[in-house]
Amino acid sequence: MDLFTIVTARADYEQGALVIIDQTQLPGREVYLALKTSEEIWEAIYLLKVRGAPAIGVAAAYGVAVCMQKVAATGFDDFYREFSRVKDYLASSRPTAVNLFTALERLNRALLKHQGVGVEILKQVLREEAEAIRKEDAEACRKIGEHGLSLLKPGMGLLTHCNAGHLAVSEYGTALAPIYLGQEQGFGFSVFVDETRPLLQGARLTAFELQKAGVNVTLICDNMASSVMKQGWVQAVLVGCDRVAANGDTANKIGTSGVAVLAKYYGIPFYVLGPTSTIDMDCPTGKEIKIEERDPAEVTEKWYDRRMAPEGIHVYNPAFDVTPAELITAIITEKGIAYFPFNDTFREWKKNK
Amino acid sequence: MDLFTIVTARADYEQGALVIIDQTQLPGREVYLALKTSEEIWEAIYLLKVRGAPAIGVAAAYGVAVCMQKVAATGFDDFYREFSRVKDYLASSRPTAVNLFTALERLNRALLKHQGVGVEILKQVLREEAEAIRKEDAEACRKIGEHGLSLLKPGMGLLTHCNAGHLAVSEYGTALAPIYLGQEQGFGFSVFVDETRPLLQGARLTAFELQKAGVNVTLICDNMASSVMKQGWVQAVLVGCDRVAANGDTANKIGTSGVAVLAKYYGIPFYVLGPTSTIDMDCPTGKEIKIEERDPAEVTEKWYDRRMAPEGIHVYNPAFDVTPAELITAIITEKGIAYFPFNDTFREWKKNK
Repeated sequence: MDLFTIVTARADYEQGALVIIDQTQLPGREVYLALKTSEEIWEAIYLLKVRGAPAIGVAAAYGVAVCMQKVAATGFDDFYREFSRVKDYLASSRPTAVNLFTALERLNRALLKHQGVGVEILKQVLREEAEAIRKEDAEACRKIGEHGLSLLKPGMGLLTHCNAGHLAVSEYGTALAPIYLGQEQGFGFSVFVDETRPLLQGARLTAFELQKAGVNVTLICDNMASSVMKQGWVQAVLVGCDRVAANGDTANKIGTSGVAVLAKYYGIPFYVLGPTSTIDMDCPTGKEIKIEERDPAEVTEKWYDRRMAPEGIHVYNPAFDVTPAELITAIITEKGIAYFPFNDTFREWKKNK
Repeated sequence: MDLFTIVTARADYEQGALVIIDQTQLPGREVYLALKTSEEIWEAIYLLKVRGAPAIGVAAAYGVAVCMQKVAATGFDDFYREFSRVKDYLASSRPTAVNLFTALERLNRALLKHQGVGVEILKQVLREEAEAIRKEDAEACRKIGEHGLSLLKPGMGLLTHCNAGHLAVSEYGTALAPIYLGQEQGFGFSVFVDETRPLLQGARLTAFELQKAGVNVTLICDNMASSVMKQGWVQAVLVGCDRVAANGDTANKIGTSGVAVLAKYYGIPFYVLGPTSTIDMDCPTGKEIKIEERDPAEVTEKWYDRRMAPEGIHVYNPAFDVTPAELITAIITEKGIAYFPFNDTFREWKKNK
């Protein structure tokens, strides 16, 4: 697919850089950034130049691997001390998506398994583990797409919120994976995309992705979803996830819980799609998920040609919300489809890992 | 109140102009426009320089009166022919709000009652009728505020969508009237304001109005309402209305129906506030209300410093949606409070008119 020529994140070890497409400049400009220091990588994640829970995990893993190639340590302890510093620093860039922590922890475990070996091997371990994370993500996306597509029928109207596609993950994405697979198989979906304020990931990224893949897309403002559903234009909602608690409560982009409430009211299935790595069994329910609050200027000023609210106004700007498990028809992972209540299936999935 | 120094619409007969504050420039700039031709007035309504169902009615009435002062007709027929042309032309500016048609029809009836009199008297009839419309609106707002406030308690958290305040009507507005009255009486409300995409009437106008009146305001994106409600911060939703059908189905700014669904889910009362002139007994249900669709560029380009969606993307941009009567806890007018099912109370109100 033409879309897949766009690279969300890759490690360029020759250049000594994490290379990402700057998503804040899409859809107008396709600009690649070569990030060479942990500070540059931290900032790129914080500013959403790379975003989407799995993509943040992959970018952070590649980022650590890239940074650690340059370290002039002589033994494991030296090397590990520097690794821990970089890891903890990047882990502080965004608090909600679990993939960031999972990816960094995987690198950590991989290193700890190689305490006896030389620094050059440790560097190789990091490169390989980062690549494995990306590869597993891409494979998971393909399977998520297949499982998701099994729930859909040709000609359906679909609605998605934010961006859980190629730009958020690898290749097929999560929520968009069934759409891409369906597109390849001639399902002829009509897809409604919420613009997703304040950062407009729907308008800027999802609309861009789907259009590039030849999908029939209609962009709407977030507050139009009710109207579109009421008119019978939507037969299923597909969204991604940033962290899924052990009971199925799902943190995802702000506004997702509202879409779930609407879907329930209009009798439309509401599907959450993501890799099992997004399920956090250490987090019993949504209450324990820390929700990132971001700069009010994202709401009042960002993207605009002038300030769009009075000076001094108080703004509440949470980046995520939690959709309660009972509003979710099914959670679709690379391992299959879980239905409410989710606990037992999750335990089964996580046990076999 | 400091806010009331701002004039939404007034007729300046000396200048021969309808004077409005240009709401598209708020909150950054307080610019008044003197509109001297029916074309200028039509455009100001179409471009939402003056907006809000009752304010459109008042502006159109003043606008007709202003334009008709300059007509050099010698008898009733000549005068009435020109009046009809201007009336029909302005009626074509926006299709959804009923107040526009009601106001123009009132002028029409007033003229038809004076077929025997001279042109100067006809001009005076229009001036007086337009003034009466504005005055009745202002009085209705005050009463709507009192009825609405009777349903609220000090310290409550409230949520509103779009702008149904001073800038949309006269003086106290409709949905905001209980808030202003409560503010005068020390109720200490906390008010959450949906920014209201795509035209941002919440961010630009409601936040501006409420802040100017000293109310405790928090601006949110439309998709954050679910999150705010879930956290228990909202005890009542107050919205205005552009047209209420005989069964209580209510057309209001796009997104209103979504807020109503959320309020139902979270067990929060959902109140619609407006003058009885907004109730259209000729319209049996919401299905018969024509919903205005507007320019896609409002979603993809307007206000922004660059295009925020890919070129060529399809956009659905309805200006209104219809909230079904069963989601509305009460409809509050100058005549009192109606509860679902609304038909009988509406008939009573309209009979006594």
